[in-house]
Amino acid sequence: MSVSTVTLDDIVAAHRILRDRNPLVQCLTNTVSVQFVANALLSAGAAPAMVDNPEEAAGFAEIADAVLVNLGTPTAAQVESSRLASAAARAAGKPWVLDPVGAGGLPWRTQVAVELLANRPSVIRANASEIMGLAGADGGSRGVDSSAAVADSVEAARSLLDRVDVVAASGETDHILGPDVMVKVGGGSALLQRVTATGCALGALTAAYCAVSPSALIGAVAAHAHVAAASEIAARSTSRPGSFAVVFLDGLDAVDGSVLRELVRLDIGWPE
Amino acid sequence: MSVSTVTLDDIVAAHRILRDRNPLVQCLTNTVSVQFVANALLSAGAAPAMVDNPEEAAGFAEIADAVLVNLGTPTAAQVESSRLASAAARAAGKPWVLDPVGAGGLPWRTQVAVELLANRPSVIRANASEIMGLAGADGGSRGVDSSAAVADSVEAARSLLDRVDVVAASGETDHILGPDVMVKVGGGSALLQRVTATGCALGALTAAYCAVSPSALIGAVAAHAHVAAASEIAARSTSRPGSFAVVFLDGLDAVDGSVLRELVRLDIGWPE
Amino acid sequence: MSVSTVTLDDIVAAHRILRDRNPLVQCLTNTVSVQFVANALLSAGAAPAMVDNPEEAAGFAEIADAVLVNLGTPTAAQVESSRLASAAARAAGKPWVLDPVGAGGLPWRTQVAVELLANRPSVIRANASEIMGLAGADGGSRGVDSSAAVADSVEAARSLLDRVDVVAASGETDHILGPDVMVKVGGGSALLQRVTATGCALGALTAAYCAVSPSALIGAVAAHAHVAAASEIAARSTSRPGSFAVVFLDGLDAVDGSVLRELVRLDIGWPE
Repeated sequence: MSVSTVTLDDIVAAHRILRDRNPLVQCLTNTVSVQFVANALLSAGAAPAMVDNPEEAAGFAEIADAVLVNLGTPTAAQVESSRLASAAARAAGKPWVLDPVGAGGLPWRTQVAVELLANRPSVIRANASEIMGLAGADGGSRGVDSSAAVADSVEAARSLLDRVDVVAASGETDHILGPDVMVKVGGGSALLQRVTATGCALGALTAAYCAVSPSALIGAVAAHAHVAAASEIAARSTSRPGSFAVVFLDGLDAVDGSVLRELVRLDIGWPE
Repeated sequence: MSVSTVTLDDIVAAHRILRDRNPLVQCLTNTVSVQFVANALLSAGAAPAMVDNPEEAAGFAEIADAVLVNLGTPTAAQVESSRLASAAARAAGKPWVLDPVGAGGLPWRTQVAVELLANRPSVIRANASEIMGLAGADGGSRGVDSSAAVADSVEAARSLLDRVDVVAASGETDHILGPDVMVKVGGGSALLQRVTATGCALGALTAAYCAVSPSALIGAVAAHAHVAAASEIAARSTSRPGSFAVVFLDGLDAVDGSVLRELVRLDIGWPE
Repeated sequence: MSVSTVTLDDIVAAHRILRDRNPLVQCLTNTVSVQFVANALLSAGAAPAMVDNPEEAAGFAEIADAVLVNLGTPTAAQVESSRLASAAARAAGKPWVLDPVGAGGLPWRTQVAVELLANRPSVIRANASEIMGLAGADGGSRGVDSSAAVADSVEAARSLLDRVDVVAASGETDHILGPDVMVKVGGGSALLQRVTATGCALGALTAAYCAVSPSALIGAVAAHAHVAAASEIAARSTSRPGSFAVVFLDGLDAVDGSVLRELVRLDIGWPE
């Protein structure tokens, strides 16, 4: 089995290509995050398009460079659109990211998320409780936040790797698992937890990076590194959540290759 | 009849418990406010979950610590979810808050709001026009803003007290009525009127405080006091609406017991 | 044929009346922009009401001073509401603005937009690709952003003038066409392209200005001038997109007659 891995050079290269190509990301996301996700993509260097109705979802997935499906506030029409867009992305060979918000704690949407796995996402981006919920383990989800520690979700994440290329568990230290590697991305800021939709923005940015990266693993790690670096820059100028949301977007714009080289801390290992 | 009342000590205690317990508030709210409401809850010290689809609304109300129903941009599915969530909250003994946006001026949603009263909310949080509209009086609502003065809505608010524990009429001076008491909360900033969704955030915070307070009256007054104090702090650093929205969220985070003791002005009386 | 035109004095007068009358704008807009549009209207001096459900859309159009229909994330219910509200606005003689987001690149919504033209909007507010898409030309739309230059859309814009009073093509230099005049509005900031919903806010502000202006041409030009001036003020204090979104709202509030006289550059001509 070939070992796929990722280096800091890969991340810097992915960032440069993101800025060059400005990939178009179709977002089927929740009403809470939709504006912030669009602004995060624009700030980071991608282009958002929130095409989430059943009439257009599949057709647009063929045009977009990548697709995000986020189940934060699913309507019946959005669930239908999510099925259509993820199937179309799969058929067209476009990367798509599943963000199963609230999986585990909420049975109906957990079932929707499990069904969407049939279209094999490139990446599942979630917190520890949601990953455990999706894998059928009890993660103690309390709605949409996580009461489980990231390290506790590694077993559940591994069990999902037969239906997805990469599982990214976000937390104090992000744990990103591919078939034969686990990358920990450190750094970031605790203020990310005090602002809604930062996780959703990370999911969207993961889709954007997958569109310009040679592997889903590099795409996922690059996105998490970009967000961690941006949040560190932001936390230098404020300790309050309202201001942090603003300067975090500024930080997504400010991140460049040298910032990534200075701030990103990767720990590459292999899950036992 | 026992006189229930509220003191500054009660408010400071409620604030401390809010920060300790981080109550989970299920929000069924409008598309305009949904991000701001989530951020306001996070900034103030509560946890938001925007579960507003008919499949999950009732089940989640049993998990949440409190429920907000806001009728700002009601879809057919949200109206159904609002009925289910408010009934489930009532059955489970969880506090729920009704924010009847646009009541009076818009007949369809006024009828929806009146029907929801059958599930006896803990608090109605609204402006003067909406309270008059809900009570069947003509409040001169012009869409979703208020053209009536708060003092003019006291009679209408009292008439609603057979179907709700507390009616909170927001305005220059908030008037909060319980069965045998009227509390006026002064202070605040006129800039709150220049930013959308500040009233919706107040409704959500009222639900959060009701989850941690010994009475709906204390919960409602504490929420209005927290918002008034935060807005006063915010108005010290800007006179423009875009910046105010940001520093108001910072202010919700900055408010603590000593800020409340310094800034909150309560006027306790009995409606004649 | 009488030549209708517009002067800087007309714009300053429209701005003064906007602030005096605080026109109520009914917005049927997308989930990405809905909060920003509401805040932009409030900051500029108008009043937003996001009444977009089929039960209330037509009735509210009779109460509102103007209507915005934006097709950014159309649901089936919103499309129905858009038909009802635009027809009611037309019948009541209220100005309404069509913002055909994504027209051209997305066939379903292009058809919806074309059908809405039957209710004769006062203004179509769009980017070059969308105007070309709506007119049946190939504008190379890539989702919701524009890959066509504004100047290239003038022919398409002219062809729409039999079904609308004014076509406003936004871009580096806005091109606003009436039946016998073309007004170019210069200035502005490239940062407007780095923040989502600034175009949507411009559409809403166009509706607000049409409600207080003697012609749709003056209303459209005044709105574009107000936004250009606000963005120039904003760009003086930041070069990053997160902060720009905030200070742009502050700028909409700060613009007054003297700012307009100082910053607005109009170029009045006649399309050949």
